[in-house]
Amino acid sequence: MRAYIDDHRAAFLDDLAEWLRIPSVSVQPDHAADVRRSADWLAARLTATGFPTAEVWETAGAPAVFAEWLSGDPNAPTVLVYGHHDVQPAALEDGWDTDPFEPVVRDNRLYARGAADDKGQVFFHTLGVRAHLAATGRGAPAVNLKLLIEGEEESGSPNFRTLVEERRERIAADAVIVSDTGMWSRDTPTVCTGMRGLVECEIELHGPDQDIHSGSFGGAVPNPATAAARLVAALHDEHARVAVPGFYEGIVELTDRERELFAELPFDEAEWLRTAKSHAPYGEAGHTTLERLWARPTAEVNGIGGGYQGPGGKTIVPSSAFLKLSFRLVAGQDPEHVEKAVTAWVADQLPAGIRHTIAFSGATRPCLTPLDHPALQSVARAMGRAFEQDIRFTREGGSGPAADLQDVLEAPVLFLGISIPSDGWHAPNEKIELDLLLKGVETSAYLWGDLAEHWRGAP
Amino acid sequence: MRAYIDDHRAAFLDDLAEWLRIPSVSVQPDHAADVRRSADWLAARLTATGFPTAEVWETAGAPAVFAEWLSGDPNAPTVLVYGHHDVQPAALEDGWDTDPFEPVVRDNRLYARGAADDKGQVFFHTLGVRAHLAATGRGAPAVNLKLLIEGEEESGSPNFRTLVEERRERIAADAVIVSDTGMWSRDTPTVCTGMRGLVECEIELHGPDQDIHSGSFGGAVPNPATAAARLVAALHDEHARVAVPGFYEGIVELTDRERELFAELPFDEAEWLRTAKSHAPYGEAGHTTLERLWARPTAEVNGIGGGYQGPGGKTIVPSSAFLKLSFRLVAGQDPEHVEKAVTAWVADQLPAGIRHTIAFSGATRPCLTPLDHPALQSVARAMGRAFEQDIRFTREGGSGPAADLQDVLEAPVLFLGISIPSDGWHAPNEKIELDLLLKGVETSAYLWGDLAEHWRGAP
Repeated sequence: MRAYIDDHRAAFLDDLAEWLRIPSVSVQPDHAADVRRSADWLAARLTATGFPTAEVWETAGAPAVFAEWLSGDPNAPTVLVYGHHDVQPAALEDGWDTDPFEPVVRDNRLYARGAADDKGQVFFHTLGVRAHLAATGRGAPAVNLKLLIEGEEESGSPNFRTLVEERRERIAADAVIVSDTGMWSRDTPTVCTGMRGLVECEIELHGPDQDIHSGSFGGAVPNPATAAARLVAALHDEHARVAVPGFYEGIVELTDRERELFAELPFDEAEWLRTAKSHAPYGEAGHTTLERLWARPTAEVNGIGGGYQGPGGKTIVPSSAFLKLSFRLVAGQDPEHVEKAVTAWVADQLPAGIRHTIAFSGATRPCLTPLDHPALQSVARAMGRAFEQDIRFTREGGSGPAADLQDVLEAPVLFLGISIPSDGWHAPNEKIELDLLLKGVETSAYLWGDLAEHWRGAP
Repeated sequence: MRAYIDDHRAAFLDDLAEWLRIPSVSVQPDHAADVRRSADWLAARLTATGFPTAEVWETAGAPAVFAEWLSGDPNAPTVLVYGHHDVQPAALEDGWDTDPFEPVVRDNRLYARGAADDKGQVFFHTLGVRAHLAATGRGAPAVNLKLLIEGEEESGSPNFRTLVEERRERIAADAVIVSDTGMWSRDTPTVCTGMRGLVECEIELHGPDQDIHSGSFGGAVPNPATAAARLVAALHDEHARVAVPGFYEGIVELTDRERELFAELPFDEAEWLRTAKSHAPYGEAGHTTLERLWARPTAEVNGIGGGYQGPGGKTIVPSSAFLKLSFRLVAGQDPEHVEKAVTAWVADQLPAGIRHTIAFSGATRPCLTPLDHPALQSVARAMGRAFEQDIRFTREGGSGPAADLQDVLEAPVLFLGISIPSDGWHAPNEKIELDLLLKGVETSAYLWGDLAEHWRGAP
């Protein structure tokens, strides 16, 4: 297996670099053509890999890619691999050492926007399935293998739910393998068992119809920048709990056992802070950092702005201000309910004379997988063989549309990712460690045989 | 007098338009040459007006203009006219109907950045002194007339205090006439008796060393945008009083008589709100809108920013955020004391893991003039002749470095301005009403004779 992978490593990396050069930034309309180019490129590449079916699927937004390679064995389970081919915005001036869309290898790491999130982790399955076939001598995978690689994950997957519902028959599966998460560290490989959900909104606050002189009018009219700030300040109570009424409704609290499992992980807070590039922990009272990250919901300011932005000062009461907020959700929370709660709360907070609009973008549901699910055990075993050690279990603080697949397909969602926290997702100098990328290839190569051997799919 | 002014009106307006075309934006370094051009232009124009002395005075920042025309009468009082030749930033895309630096007359109003604040109100003295000479047949003004027109007022006059101290002998005067304020309305001409002071600062807040993923890290590290917002929210208590400890120390409270005078003015709050382009009054509990504007100090957010500013969303914990704050001060408050109080308060508010810097720019002292001062009475009489009605008294919510002149020259400060609230100071479509501009010329023409007749200057 490893010899096969070594032999094909150079071509595999060249192909990945070619894909990473396409700036498929779904959130920026002027990159729409690049997102399409990325989909076309991937479909062609999957065809070249051997998938008998590889199609670009249109949505109301950016296109997804679907590929299918049936086993031929009537007893084989069907698995759907999920990932995404769009990436976060990136520009050299954000602090990148090199062009984010010109991949470079330094110190056995591949640097590029999308290297880890998520092109690299989608792409390891291409060499993975070839290695699986080479090692087993099969002409087709041991499972019915489907891939659904969407193009709007970084935009909150606004059309993914519709796509999944419309294509329900084609993507039907016994389990979903999400390759869009990370693992604990290079020394402690882990399988993730759940993800947080996400609700995002943008709030615009309007005060005076134009910027007005802060000497002539200041102190006697409401200031929308102040109103925005007061809204943010009111988002949390003195225990750093989210103060929006109803926000915690329905939440699945951690069990004592889960808290123990979290506590047993080799967590070095000082080291974690370095990875987070942060200078102190901070968060909800009564919870550890890992609990805050994996099992507690949040309200976060992603962007705030209003008034004069240039050099020096300008003595105005600004006309408007904006907030870009996101809320991470955990099992039991319903995005629609959270959106309603936030909408009502915002309207209730603002003083007379401040008008506002609030707009939500694509919500993502939280999800959790039972630890004892046989398919999850297969993932842990395949990964254990590749890494030659026992695999532990974590959760993921980030969000993906995995829960939509869980809901619509009525299938468990499993997570297979080899990225590590220092990979810099959404940040400048995003990278993937090349040796871990190849462990991903190897895990993927072992997984299909293990699954077919130990599981017949949904009962 | 009026015939003389009418005869010279066209040339006067042409000259003013030429000056307004110079974008003397002192706060923007790339306009430094324009500020200098503005000073040179004014000095040349004052020489052409007849001032025997007209000099450009260097400072550590932008140049000021000084001009002097002595009376020849050993008993004449000396007055120093103060104004500024720099202007606020302005760009067409801010919402201007026409280029802010290409003056246009529409409906008997002159539109341009600086039309009212302050070039128009400086410039009416040029035709004013000529009209004074023409009407009295004098070869020199009835008072020793000095002009000091600075170039950094819109930048908070950082070098004005030094300039005034260094040039103390040259600018010595019995009274200072500030032409950088407005009056109540076109129907209710007023003389202003005081201005608020100003302290400005920029606070930078730093959290993670770079933007980090809000899923991977959110909820477990401090967010600098949230910290900025919480700082703003904590600036005021529930009565909209400034909550910085020591902020109100030494403040001169309004007397009952002053509150009565304010209350007697024909104040229509709905109309005022329209002028303020605002949709509700808001401010310190227990005070009327006029009291809030003229006699109460404020803390205002002029600009706020942090995190993702582009279209759509970006799920990050931002690396940094900033606040541009300004504080208006009233009589009895000391800018240095306020700066110290704010500095200590900010340091005290921030959570662990948020580092900050705070930088203050040029402070301006508040000032107040006694209602019964003979020179103030002269201003009111000259204005009364021009407007043909009794003049009432107000204060000004804005700020100017007048108090530095008061401190250093030990001279009372008087305010002569004909701008009205709708003139749009610091806002798009700033303008001056042409008929009021000419009333300013006329007031200036009457003032020098009235002053010389009724006052001998400082005792």
